[in-house]
Amino acid sequence: MLGQEFSTNIEYPNFGFEILQRDAGSFARLGKLITPHGAIETPNFIFVGTKASVKNLHPVQMKEAGADMVLANTYHLYIQPGPDLVEKMGGLHKFMGWNGPMLTDSGGFQIFSLGTGGGEDEIKGKGKSGNKSLIKIDEEQGAIFKSYKDGSLCRLNPEISMEVQRKLGADFVVQMDECTPVAGGREYTENSMRMSHRWGDRSLQAFEKTHNGMQAVYGVVQGGVYRDLREESADYTRSRPFFGTAVGGCLGGTKVHFYEILSWIPNRIHPDRPVHLLGIGKIEDIFEGVKQGMDTFDCVTPTREARHGRALMKGVPNGFINLRNSKFKDDGTALDETLGLASSANYSKAYIHHLMKAGEMLAFQILSQHNVAVIARLMREIRETLRNGGDLDQLRKEWLPT
Amino acid sequence: MLGQEFSTNIEYPNFGFEILQRDAGSFARLGKLITPHGAIETPNFIFVGTKASVKNLHPVQMKEAGADMVLANTYHLYIQPGPDLVEKMGGLHKFMGWNGPMLTDSGGFQIFSLGTGGGEDEIKGKGKSGNKSLIKIDEEQGAIFKSYKDGSLCRLNPEISMEVQRKLGADFVVQMDECTPVAGGREYTENSMRMSHRWGDRSLQAFEKTHNGMQAVYGVVQGGVYRDLREESADYTRSRPFFGTAVGGCLGGTKVHFYEILSWIPNRIHPDRPVHLLGIGKIEDIFEGVKQGMDTFDCVTPTREARHGRALMKGVPNGFINLRNSKFKDDGTALDETLGLASSANYSKAYIHHLMKAGEMLAFQILSQHNVAVIARLMREIRETLRNGGDLDQLRKEWLPT
Repeated sequence: MLGQEFSTNIEYPNFGFEILQRDAGSFARLGKLITPHGAIETPNFIFVGTKASVKNLHPVQMKEAGADMVLANTYHLYIQPGPDLVEKMGGLHKFMGWNGPMLTDSGGFQIFSLGTGGGEDEIKGKGKSGNKSLIKIDEEQGAIFKSYKDGSLCRLNPEISMEVQRKLGADFVVQMDECTPVAGGREYTENSMRMSHRWGDRSLQAFEKTHNGMQAVYGVVQGGVYRDLREESADYTRSRPFFGTAVGGCLGGTKVHFYEILSWIPNRIHPDRPVHLLGIGKIEDIFEGVKQGMDTFDCVTPTREARHGRALMKGVPNGFINLRNSKFKDDGTALDETLGLASSANYSKAYIHHLMKAGEMLAFQILSQHNVAVIARLMREIRETLRNGGDLDQLRKEWLPT
Repeated sequence: MLGQEFSTNIEYPNFGFEILQRDAGSFARLGKLITPHGAIETPNFIFVGTKASVKNLHPVQMKEAGADMVLANTYHLYIQPGPDLVEKMGGLHKFMGWNGPMLTDSGGFQIFSLGTGGGEDEIKGKGKSGNKSLIKIDEEQGAIFKSYKDGSLCRLNPEISMEVQRKLGADFVVQMDECTPVAGGREYTENSMRMSHRWGDRSLQAFEKTHNGMQAVYGVVQGGVYRDLREESADYTRSRPFFGTAVGGCLGGTKVHFYEILSWIPNRIHPDRPVHLLGIGKIEDIFEGVKQGMDTFDCVTPTREARHGRALMKGVPNGFINLRNSKFKDDGTALDETLGLASSANYSKAYIHHLMKAGEMLAFQILSQHNVAVIARLMREIRETLRNGGDLDQLRKEWLPT
């Protein structure tokens, strides 16, 4: 299949990716990602606005916090409010008031893993069994699943995913794939990966039909925890006219395995395309991903941690403090006065602790914006280190002392 | 009792109230209320930050929306985080990051009415029976009630209320009173009112002991739906060295009755003191209150309506639109582009409708700030009308066409 000629040849006139500098000791690179909604530097973080809203934060607050890019989830928006409505309202950028670069995923990940209630666990290999919303996967017809909103039956396949993503109108879209369940085993993973490749071709063909130069499509590397499959999948994406490469699916059961899987990727994927690591965004994982040539990351961590009372922090064990902890009850110091952000500088830890205890929603807003700013700062410092030929491991130690 | 000399003589060197202009056709007046945290013009609205946080909004967002003053609830803060903690953190202004004028209530209202789950209903006379958190009222000892946090027994009496309010450190504090239950009848109301007057004297004596010139105290007019009792209570507050007069308690069961009760007040209370109408803040009630000489109002309406998906609006029936309504599903127009506020101008009604349907908290933030801005604008327009000798009834028709 890989040797076979692929007739589709897609051009991306309004997009670009330039590699500005390379790390001496790893695959890390400083890059510039150009979109119709502006250029951003990489490595960078794509903040998650699942339902066309980054939880608790206005786009203005995202910009204040230093965010460069957001994503929205095709699965959620397909069901509510629906792609036709978003298109009628002028597309996602206008609908949600975000005028910077934006990505939508294919919807596949949510369909195949959200039913288990363990999205991130699925990626990290802590798979759970049972998927109540997914009814059936059929290569030709696609996935049949129950709407999270009203239980009605919905279908998603490559053609539908690309049409939905075109109507949503983000700068970057992602091919339809199956996020292979971790418990599937080698045979399932292999068959699933091959289907994802065929779905990738169908995605490209569907994409090309209505392509007007305002969107660019990412292929997805699947293959689970099997090196030869990951390499085959990397070769597949490289052979097709995708604009970028995304790394998806099961990434093993432990950090070591996850990092090992990542190490198989950089030598096999297309070297000149931007690489996105799907659904990963903890601080230690970002460092590892950057070193393996990943250019962008996404994860719900910043805003989800906020809702659990956690403030991300540079230089503390585990990378966060938990404001629910009673030791902050009378701590009059600010979260961080150096972030240039009112949310981080104007309120004491004692006040945020009180808001958490009192169930006041303002706590989530304060911590969400703070956490976005911390991750944006992390990415800035990684880029500065790459720009200056610095040592990423040294920076990692500053962020995560052990 | 009213003839009896009251020995306490309290001065308020850092406070002032100037009446700048009077309405020709009503008791309405344009005033200037001076506090250690700045001066504001009246009539004005005091936005409610029950637990030291106006729900979903930063102080910066409150200022952006045009808010001049906020209040926090003594009852809630007494229990969580406690007055000692707030004092240790530098007082409420510093703790919550609000540097403008601020008021705390006495805590009496919540103790006597919150247990029924019907605070505003109690004021408006739609009383409910049963008060699960209030254990006992004893004139000498005060009210014994169960903590909403952990069920432990708490006590509030005039001395404790004034001490708690001193530690909280708002500019304005309120005497301890009993918010008479609507179902109490005349005898209960009369006895309760007399007790509130004796509690008022104890409040003043307790206040004076630690008074350092940075706080000013309001007396409360009680008396329920009985004209002679309201007048007796007005006379009481007038005879005591309160800085301001608050109007509290049961205000009848219908709008007409509520407005009639208000009409008994202005000729009997101290004519030179600022008057605050406790817990009332719907648009039509503000117009009526202003005409009866009320200078400030407070109510949870702006932020509570937001959480129900309602956007307050000038010139629409009932004074609001409900963004949950499916007619806004594809309404691409902004809430209000003339408020000078991103929350009101940057998002379409369709987007806010989507956020409500999707359960996204950003909706509450957008609508809360919008609603605060609408009420702040209402108060500005009322003041402009008074300044220009205009017609309040005409302005009322512009706001609330029937």
